[in-house]
Amino acid sequence: MRRRRLKDGVERLLAHRDWLVEAPEQLSGQWDKLTGGKRIHLEIGMGKGQFITTLAEENPDVFYLGLEIKEEVLLRGVEKAIEKELDNVRFLWKNAEHLDQYFAKEEVERIYLNFSDPWPKSRTAKRRLTHQRFLNKYRKILVKEGEIHVKTDNEKLFEFSLNALSDEGYRLKNITFDYHNSGLSVPATTEYEDKFSRSGLRIYRLEAIKRD
Amino acid sequence: MRRRRLKDGVERLLAHRDWLVEAPEQLSGQWDKLTGGKRIHLEIGMGKGQFITTLAEENPDVFYLGLEIKEEVLLRGVEKAIEKELDNVRFLWKNAEHLDQYFAKEEVERIYLNFSDPWPKSRTAKRRLTHQRFLNKYRKILVKEGEIHVKTDNEKLFEFSLNALSDEGYRLKNITFDYHNSGLSVPATTEYEDKFSRSGLRIYRLEAIKRD
Repeated sequence: MRRRRLKDGVERLLAHRDWLVEAPEQLSGQWDKLTGGKRIHLEIGMGKGQFITTLAEENPDVFYLGLEIKEEVLLRGVEKAIEKELDNVRFLWKNAEHLDQYFAKEEVERIYLNFSDPWPKSRTAKRRLTHQRFLNKYRKILVKEGEIHVKTDNEKLFEFSLNALSDEGYRLKNITFDYHNSGLSVPATTEYEDKFSRSGLRIYRLEAIKRD
Repeated sequence: MRRRRLKDGVERLLAHRDWLVEAPEQLSGQWDKLTGGKRIHLEIGMGKGQFITTLAEENPDVFYLGLEIKEEVLLRGVEKAIEKELDNVRFLWKNAEHLDQYFAKEEVERIYLNFSDPWPKSRTAKRRLTHQRFLNKYRKILVKEGEIHVKTDNEKLFEFSLNALSDEGYRLKNITFDYHNSGLSVPATTEYEDKFSRSGLRIYRLEAIKRD
């Protein structure tokens, strides 16, 4: 069953390959060719795409890239973009490991990390998307004063992220332990966030700004 | 009763006036006369003094100052210092409003804020000891790379403090949402902290470093 679903997902995804950037490393340093000079906002682990397609719809001046390794959920994101007839969003069927090969220095304005896998065991801490290992990659590709926006329901991941970002020299702002009751604007939500928030559970959020 | 207790407290406190720095503004810029050149660590709102007297006992090379406005609790702190025969601690029967008149630029190495009043209503936010208003005073009197250590059981105050300190340019480190289970060292506790922690409740803590 799993094999069939996977094959189905891959086939259906590749049927929409115009929406995928299949060789992002070839665009490194020249994303302008694709974006027409628009600023790039990147969501790492974009899941089913509600967040990124909502933002893309509301911010035509920004070019959105969604990175996702799981083809089933990525496909759902692609379908949303098609349905909304968006021309300022594309998808990378990739994980975050080689991010610094996809973009040249200072080519990305903002990175969104929404409900990333918390990898709770300390021996897997290196896989957390706010681990120093990734923060160093983000620093390379982010513009000056570029931002990383982190949302999570996982308190431990949030605590880890606060420390990791601060230790790596990012300036933190708009830190909230209860985003949906914080008075801060909520320009877009993820599918998971809606479900989680409806259950009355809290969402942590922060913004981190790259310092020179 | 209250009047009698107050009078009693004041009289007993003044009987130990050698332990008080009654006119700290006169020492501004020349605390060395009192400390013999030791670094100054200041606890603002020192309460009953367990924290500061524990540290003073264990760190003879540091000179500790405890600031407290309530004479009944201050008296308890003074009595602890007498009992422990400490020569590296003194007390200021003051509130934090005029702190920048008591110390010259870069005269304090570290500030401790333990279980400060959360002032939960937004109209009283200015009284919080991590409000921008106070952080500006602290910045003046702290040495380069001087630190502020904040402990609290109040999540809202902690959230507020994270933002205020970050916004004012302090670098945050060792942020923990559960200090006593964090693996971080606990060199001294307050009376309140012991009681609170025994009930199984969590303590938030952070360190903030003054940036140039």
